[in-house]
Amino acid sequence: MLQSIRSPADARAVPAEQVPVLAAEIRRLLIDKVGRRGGHLGPNLGVVELTLALHRVFESPRDRILWDTGHQAYVHKLLTGRVGEFDRLRLRGGLSGYPSRTESEHDIIENSHASTVLSWAYGLATGYRLQGVSDRAVVAVIGDGALTGGMAWEALNNISAADDIPVIIVVNDNGRSYSPTVGGLAGHLAAIRTARGFERFLDGDTTAIPSSTPSLDDPPETFFESLGLTYIGPIDGHDVAAVEDALRSAVRAGGPVLVHCLTRKGNGYAPAENDTADRFHAIAAVDPDLGCPLPAPAPSWTSAFGEELARLGDRHPEVVAITAAMLRPTGLAAFAQRFPERVLDVGIAEQHAVTSAAGLALSGMRPVVAVYSTFLNRAFDQVLMDVALHRAPVTFVLDRAGITGDDGPSHNGMWDIALLNLVPGLRIAAPRDRHTLRAALEESLAEQHGPCVVRFPKGAVADMIPAIAQHENVDILRHGPRPEVLIVSVGPMAGLCLGLAERLEELGMSATVTDPRWIKPVRHGVMSLARRHRLVISVEDGIEGGGFGSLLVRRLHDEGLTVPVITFGIPTRFLDHGSRNEVLAECGLTVENITRAITRHTAGLEPVGAP
Amino acid sequence: MLQSIRSPADARAVPAEQVPVLAAEIRRLLIDKVGRRGGHLGPNLGVVELTLALHRVFESPRDRILWDTGHQAYVHKLLTGRVGEFDRLRLRGGLSGYPSRTESEHDIIENSHASTVLSWAYGLATGYRLQGVSDRAVVAVIGDGALTGGMAWEALNNISAADDIPVIIVVNDNGRSYSPTVGGLAGHLAAIRTARGFERFLDGDTTAIPSSTPSLDDPPETFFESLGLTYIGPIDGHDVAAVEDALRSAVRAGGPVLVHCLTRKGNGYAPAENDTADRFHAIAAVDPDLGCPLPAPAPSWTSAFGEELARLGDRHPEVVAITAAMLRPTGLAAFAQRFPERVLDVGIAEQHAVTSAAGLALSGMRPVVAVYSTFLNRAFDQVLMDVALHRAPVTFVLDRAGITGDDGPSHNGMWDIALLNLVPGLRIAAPRDRHTLRAALEESLAEQHGPCVVRFPKGAVADMIPAIAQHENVDILRHGPRPEVLIVSVGPMAGLCLGLAERLEELGMSATVTDPRWIKPVRHGVMSLARRHRLVISVEDGIEGGGFGSLLVRRLHDEGLTVPVITFGIPTRFLDHGSRNEVLAECGLTVENITRAITRHTAGLEPVGAP
Repeated sequence: MLQSIRSPADARAVPAEQVPVLAAEIRRLLIDKVGRRGGHLGPNLGVVELTLALHRVFESPRDRILWDTGHQAYVHKLLTGRVGEFDRLRLRGGLSGYPSRTESEHDIIENSHASTVLSWAYGLATGYRLQGVSDRAVVAVIGDGALTGGMAWEALNNISAADDIPVIIVVNDNGRSYSPTVGGLAGHLAAIRTARGFERFLDGDTTAIPSSTPSLDDPPETFFESLGLTYIGPIDGHDVAAVEDALRSAVRAGGPVLVHCLTRKGNGYAPAENDTADRFHAIAAVDPDLGCPLPAPAPSWTSAFGEELARLGDRHPEVVAITAAMLRPTGLAAFAQRFPERVLDVGIAEQHAVTSAAGLALSGMRPVVAVYSTFLNRAFDQVLMDVALHRAPVTFVLDRAGITGDDGPSHNGMWDIALLNLVPGLRIAAPRDRHTLRAALEESLAEQHGPCVVRFPKGAVADMIPAIAQHENVDILRHGPRPEVLIVSVGPMAGLCLGLAERLEELGMSATVTDPRWIKPVRHGVMSLARRHRLVISVEDGIEGGGFGSLLVRRLHDEGLTVPVITFGIPTRFLDHGSRNEVLAECGLTVENITRAITRHTAGLEPVGAP
Repeated sequence: MLQSIRSPADARAVPAEQVPVLAAEIRRLLIDKVGRRGGHLGPNLGVVELTLALHRVFESPRDRILWDTGHQAYVHKLLTGRVGEFDRLRLRGGLSGYPSRTESEHDIIENSHASTVLSWAYGLATGYRLQGVSDRAVVAVIGDGALTGGMAWEALNNISAADDIPVIIVVNDNGRSYSPTVGGLAGHLAAIRTARGFERFLDGDTTAIPSSTPSLDDPPETFFESLGLTYIGPIDGHDVAAVEDALRSAVRAGGPVLVHCLTRKGNGYAPAENDTADRFHAIAAVDPDLGCPLPAPAPSWTSAFGEELARLGDRHPEVVAITAAMLRPTGLAAFAQRFPERVLDVGIAEQHAVTSAAGLALSGMRPVVAVYSTFLNRAFDQVLMDVALHRAPVTFVLDRAGITGDDGPSHNGMWDIALLNLVPGLRIAAPRDRHTLRAALEESLAEQHGPCVVRFPKGAVADMIPAIAQHENVDILRHGPRPEVLIVSVGPMAGLCLGLAERLEELGMSATVTDPRWIKPVRHGVMSLARRHRLVISVEDGIEGGGFGSLLVRRLHDEGLTVPVITFGIPTRFLDHGSRNEVLAECGLTVENITRAITRHTAGLEPVGAP
C-alpha cells in the first residue's frame, strides 16, 4: 500500500480502517531500511501514527507542518513522495536524514538543532496574519525533551500570549530525547499522565489510555494552561483516529493550542522499545530480526574519552561531568556508572550547561562539559561572558568536531576553532590519538585560570600516532632531511599530513610534520620551527577563515616572520551530507589536492619560500 | 546613617524601626549621584528594600547573593562598603556599573547579560552540595523580565527537580524589564496578583498588599508550583520586614524555593515612577528635583535609525520590526507608533527573536531585528543555522557595535564582525554617517537571498561625512597625491582615518582613505585600490583577530597580492569600563598610535611597501 502513496493526498484517501495496515507497512520499511543503512530508528518508529494523522488532517504544503529536531521526519518523507528514494537515505546525493528544502516542497525548515520549531512557527504564523492569509495552518511538532531547551520556552511564552495566531503545537511526549527527559517539566508531564489516569501507558499498556477526555472531572491546571495556552490531551499518539480528532479540535479552537500526545520511542519494534539505554535512537546497521547492532569497528573517540574521564575521576574527586541530555552519545556513561553523583544531565540546554559549569568552577569543583561541537555554537555568549570573563576553569570536550558528514550541514563541527578563537584566555587542544587525548584531558585539568577545550572528531581513534621527537613544546611526527616545508597538523589531520609529507618527498621536497597538540594560543615551538623553514602549511578540519591557520598567519605576522604560509581547512559554506571522507575530499582536504596547491605555489617562487 | 554602613554586618545591626530611614537615605543618594552622573536609576530605586532585606537575612560573602543583569546592584554596592566610591560610578578607574570581582568579595558574578543567574546559582549550589558544604546559602535575584529568557527557563526546569539544592530564587517582579514584560508568564504573574488580591498594587497602593499569606484559601497552583518548586508570595518588595520573613521561610524550606516579590521600578522618585516610557531605566544626567533629563546632545545613531526605519516602513509594507524587550533603547518607538501591528516585542529572548525572524521571512515578510551588538552573540547558532542556512532575508541592525565603554567588558559590541564573518552568505554593512546608514538599510531590504547586518556604535551620528569620489563600488573620502598608503576605514572610524591621513601627509606620506560601506564580503573596489598602493591600513572598532582586517588580508592573499597590510582593531581581551574615547585610546586606536606603527613599519621597508 505504501508504494501507492505518492503525496499526502493519497494518505488522506486511505479509509480509516486501512490506516493501521499502512502504519504497519511503514514500520516494517523503517526497520528494514534504517536497520540496513543506519539512521534515527527509534524516534521515527515512535511517530508513525502521529505523522499519518498530521498528513490526514492538514494539507501540506499549503498547511505548514514543521518538525523540531528533523531526525523524526522519516515518516513524513515516506508520505510525501519519497518512498522510492529511501534506499539512499543519508548517502551522498541521496535523501538527507533531515528535512531538506531541495528535496521537497513539504520540507519547510531544515532544522536539526533542537528546540527551534516553536520560533519558526511563531514567525510563520505571525507573517501570515500580517499578510491577511488565513487558510494556512501552522503546525509544529516538538518532543518533550526539546521543551527543556530555552528557545522553546522563549517561543512558548510568546505564543501563549498571542491569541491571534492559530499555531498548533503538537508535543510528542515519549519521556525521553536521548536520555529520559529531566527537570521540573518532565515531572509535570508525568504528573499529568498520573492525574489523568494514564499511568500504565509508559508500561506499554496502550489500552489504559482513554483517547478523548480526561478521567477527572476537574483536573489541575497544567503548566501550559497557566501560561494561557489551550491544552488538549493527553492523547494516545499511536491511535491515529484519536490524534486526528485532537488536531481537528485544535483547528476549531482558533488561537494557539497545545496537543499533548503520548508516544513510545521505538514503538512496534521490541528491541528498540525495550532498550532502556536508548541505543536505537540513532543506529549504525543492525540485524533487523534480532535487533543486534553490528559490532562497532575500532574503538571510537567517544568511548576513548569516556574511559579516560572515568579513569581521571578517581584521581580528581573535584571533576564533575555535565551533559545536555546526551549522556551516552557523549561517552559519559562509564563515568556516570562510577561516579553517579558527579554527573549532571541538565536537559537539552547548552546555555545553562555552560553557565552551570562556571558556577561549579567557582564553587571549587572542576567541571567537564561534554557536548557535540556543533551544539556548543548555541552557547557562545555563555562561554565568552560567563566562563571566560570570569576566568572559570572549565573543560569543554567537543565530540563530533570537524566533519561528521552524513548528518548534513547542521551537524558538522566545523565552526568550533574559529568561534573559540574569539574568546580571550581560552585554550584549545586537538589530540591526534588516544594517547594525546589522555594528555590533553590531564593538562586541561591542571589549568587553574581559565577554560580549556579538547576537540576530536567522530569515528575511530588510533591508539598512538607516535612522535619521533619533541621540539620545545610541540611534537615532531616526521623529520624532513632539509628545512623546506613545515606541515603543521591539527589533531586528526595527522594521518593526512604524514601521507602528504611522503608524497612531497616523492616529488623531491623535504617535509617535516609537527603536531602542536594545543592549537590556541599558537605554541612557541611552532613559531621557532616556522622560522627555520621555507614554506609553512597548516591543515585543519575546521573552517579556514578564522581557524588555526588564520591564528598562525597572524602570529607569524605579528612577530615579523615573512615565511610564506598556505592554510588548508574547510571553506566557510554549508556542506551537503555524504561520508566524512567524501566531504573532506569535496573540501580539498586530500593529499593530492594539497600537493597540487603546494607545487603550484612553489613553482611561482624563486627560490622556494624565500621571504 | 548610610556613611556608617561599612559592611553588611552594619546593615544587619540597624534596628528594624530604623531601616526605613536608611532606605530613604539610600534612595536620596541614588537620585542625587546617579542623576548627576548617569546610570541605571529606575531598577535600583526599585530594589532598595529588597537589597536591605537580603543583606539582613544572609551573611555575604559566606552566603552567595547573585544579581541577574547586574545593573540592579547599586544598593548592594552601597551596603558592602562602597558608599565613598560611589561618586566615581562608571568612570574610568572608578566603580563599575555592574558587580565586579576586583571591587569586592561580595560581588560573585560580573554578569550583565540577562537570564543567566539561575544557572550560576544551580552550579554554585550543586558544587557546594558535592563538597558537603551546607552552611552557605545561594540566593539568586532575577527580574520578571529576565524570566522570559530561555536560559532562565533551562535553569528553572533543572532546579525545580533538584530537591537537594537549597537555591533561593528571588523574583523581583516589577512587570517590566525595559518595556513591560511580555508573554504568557507575564500574564500568569498578573493573574497571581489579581487572584490573590494584589491587583491594586501596581496602581501604587502598597497598603493593598497583605505582606504574609494569600487571601484565598486555596489559590490555583502557580506556574512555578506546577514545576515542583516551592512558591512563597507574592510579597510586597518594599516592606523590608515582609521580605525578611519570606526569606527566612525560604531558608527553612530547605530545597529550592521561589520568593515572589512585587516592586515598583523607580519607587520613591515620582518622575521615574510615573514615566510609562521607562526613560529612567538607564539615564544620562538629570536634574534631580525636576527629573528632566538634560537635552540629548547631537542626534544619535539610535534615533537616526529609528527615523529612517519609520520612513522606510511606508514604502515597504512587508517590513516588520522585532525587538528582544528593548523597543525604545533600540530606537523602534517611532516605527511602532506608525506601524503598531508591525512591531514584535518577543521578550528578553534573542534566540527566539532571530529564529522568529527567519520564520517571518519565509512567510513573505521582511524582518528587521533591532538588537544591541553584544546581545546578538547570544543567538549565533540561530543566525547560522536558522537564518543563514535557510538563506532567509533578514536584516539585523546592531546598535552599540564597537566600544560602548562605560558599561564595561560585557556591553562592548566588539565581537560582531569577527563572529558574523563565520556565517556563510551573510553580508555586513558599517555605515559612517546618517546618509550611509539610510543607504545601508535600503540596500539590505533589497537583498533577497540571505541575511544582512547593519552595525553602528553608541553615540552621536554625523549627518554626512562626504565621499569625494567613487571607485567602483567603494567611497573615496580623501585622495592622496601619490599611491602610497591606502587607509580602509570601517564605519565610524572614518573621522579617525581622515585625521590619520592628514597626519601622514604632514610626515611626507601620501594617504588615500576609502570606506567600502559593506565590509563583508570584501568589495572588489577595495581590492583594486589595494593593488595600486604600497601599504594598506585597515581600521575597525571590532576585534582585530578574525575581523574585517583579517578578511581583507585573507582575500588579498587568496588573490596573490603581496602588498603589506597592517590591521588595526581591538585586541581580543576583556576591556575595563571607561569612556568610549578612553577605551579606544587604550586599544591604540588613535591617530598618534597608528601613525607610530606605520612609520615603524615603513622605516623597516626599502622601498616602502614593495611587494
